[in-house]
Amino acid sequence: MVRPFRWDSERRVLQLLDQRRLPFEKVWIECARADEVANAIRDMAIRGAPAIGIAAAYAVVLGFARGADSGTEAGRFDRLAAALLNTRPTAVNLRAALTRMRSRLESVLSAPAADLLGELEVEADRIAAEDLAANRRLGALGAGLLSPADRAARILTHCNAGSLATSGYGTALGIVRAIAESGRPVEVFAPETRPYLQGARLTAWELKEDGIPVTLVTDGMVGSLLAGARMDAVVVGADRIAANGDSANKIGTYQAAVLAKEHGVPFVVAAPFSSVDLETPTGAEIPIEQRDPEEIVKIAGTRIAPEGVRVWNPAFDVTPARYITAIVTERGVARPPFPASLGDLATLHA
Amino acid sequence: MVRPFRWDSERRVLQLLDQRRLPFEKVWIECARADEVANAIRDMAIRGAPAIGIAAAYAVVLGFARGADSGTEAGRFDRLAAALLNTRPTAVNLRAALTRMRSRLESVLSAPAADLLGELEVEADRIAAEDLAANRRLGALGAGLLSPADRAARILTHCNAGSLATSGYGTALGIVRAIAESGRPVEVFAPETRPYLQGARLTAWELKEDGIPVTLVTDGMVGSLLAGARMDAVVVGADRIAANGDSANKIGTYQAAVLAKEHGVPFVVAAPFSSVDLETPTGAEIPIEQRDPEEIVKIAGTRIAPEGVRVWNPAFDVTPARYITAIVTERGVARPPFPASLGDLATLHA
Repeated sequence: MVRPFRWDSERRVLQLLDQRRLPFEKVWIECARADEVANAIRDMAIRGAPAIGIAAAYAVVLGFARGADSGTEAGRFDRLAAALLNTRPTAVNLRAALTRMRSRLESVLSAPAADLLGELEVEADRIAAEDLAANRRLGALGAGLLSPADRAARILTHCNAGSLATSGYGTALGIVRAIAESGRPVEVFAPETRPYLQGARLTAWELKEDGIPVTLVTDGMVGSLLAGARMDAVVVGADRIAANGDSANKIGTYQAAVLAKEHGVPFVVAAPFSSVDLETPTGAEIPIEQRDPEEIVKIAGTRIAPEGVRVWNPAFDVTPARYITAIVTERGVARPPFPASLGDLATLHA
Repeated sequence: MVRPFRWDSERRVLQLLDQRRLPFEKVWIECARADEVANAIRDMAIRGAPAIGIAAAYAVVLGFARGADSGTEAGRFDRLAAALLNTRPTAVNLRAALTRMRSRLESVLSAPAADLLGELEVEADRIAAEDLAANRRLGALGAGLLSPADRAARILTHCNAGSLATSGYGTALGIVRAIAESGRPVEVFAPETRPYLQGARLTAWELKEDGIPVTLVTDGMVGSLLAGARMDAVVVGADRIAANGDSANKIGTYQAAVLAKEHGVPFVVAAPFSSVDLETPTGAEIPIEQRDPEEIVKIAGTRIAPEGVRVWNPAFDVTPARYITAIVTERGVARPPFPASLGDLATLHA
């Protein structure tokens, strides 16, 4: 199990595994400043909603550890947070992590003798540790839902909601890992997930490393796979889950959900509760990041389309709640109607 | 308008535009022997069901023009036909073209004084010319179906069913061209169509060459596009249409059809009547070619997935007739129930 980041507490630097170069090269990017982390998020060196939340928390530590700022500590935080929030507008975990860092800052500022930097570092460590624990817990809950008795569980995923997208275990792939760890056979079908090929490069790789059978397909094969193979579930991660259950995730997820429904296959969203944003009423209010057309017209540096062609490149899409069978979080499994079910999970653990 | 082949009657050689290198290089492959044509089909230098039918017809001419064969003319034909049929099992136009060449051979053999080679050449030329005429006719019929009065027609396609896939006008893109030629605005949305990227490389290119607005998307964006944009139709080609209307086409077509239905968008198959195979009762009997995993794990020579990963790579899928709104052929527009409608078209013009 590979983790996408390493926090060097001694030197106070954040090392990020450059996911653009996986699985062929393991290159660690060393970030000593918050803006270096922001760039790494924007440039997709680190991706996955939970992972970028954790990276942003450590970026706050870096922001306070280095560089001068003439204003107040709170003002300094606000400037850091604004720059980090701006990197990837869709994922809410980033905002959730910054909200926690801000709370910690405020409690430190009200106790003047406290070690500000040390306390911020403790909070970032805690966010990372809690994400790992949440992954394991939601993995176990999801594994309980998806266990055919007589044969290997067959799970179709999308993009990478694995160890590389989180603190190191995964959400959708956390469920897969939990099934495997319980000794039951499981196999995964991974669409390559253009344009960034997270399925081909990351999901295929991390499952192979763990010895879990994985079959790679193109994004156009999802429908045929669901029509022809007996799939137990489509399981994906989420970048933000609205209060009504509408879920934003990597582009291609929405159509996988429609196709799952058409074929009578359960569609399961797996995410830490920090991905649930009760302040966003529906998917219509989730901002969708539009990315550079170059990501589509070039693959691995090679041009694949004629010069000057128009391109549409949304990074995410929104799956309406009506296509979702269950939302698996570490707090429990939400089921339709989601407004009530997600609300219950929020209240019970508030 | 670019044609994917050139027949040099003087030298009796077939030149094929190498579609694997488009749109960046225009390289013509010269085939003097039938097996060179077979290889070009197998290796995807030429693709598109109508285009490979025409190429196979000329390959028969080449097979009789060169090389010795100790058997009968009929035996020689059978060996040539078997080798050519073997190249791409899904497309039926190849078989239809060979059936026509065989009929011509038989009528020549019954008239001993006839010029065998010249007659075969005339038949191949005729197949090519008839395909072009069929494209123009079905294009006009399709254009009549898809003409919103108040704004540009918006058509989502898949793969390349254009001039490069046919004798030079196109089936799905023939409809687009017919709309444009009638002076009405039209714009096209082209999924890139992995693994071979026919959408990004061929459809985007040939429409740009014709000055028709085209927007490139990835295969995972089809659902979001249908949900968010007002699309008038999804229009695709076909490699084989069974008697009940089930249609085989490039992998990814099936899910586009499901997504079109979910969004209330008409799903139209455009093909010459030679793609209709009344001897194949349903889609279940259409053989689906499985291709080399290397096509998926490498893009433009660059590896994109870890070594040793399992891959599923069907070249085509079958769209059941229940998802199809209309099948546009040069003989007329078939509508559900397709068994009757396709049967009528066959009888009327028999």
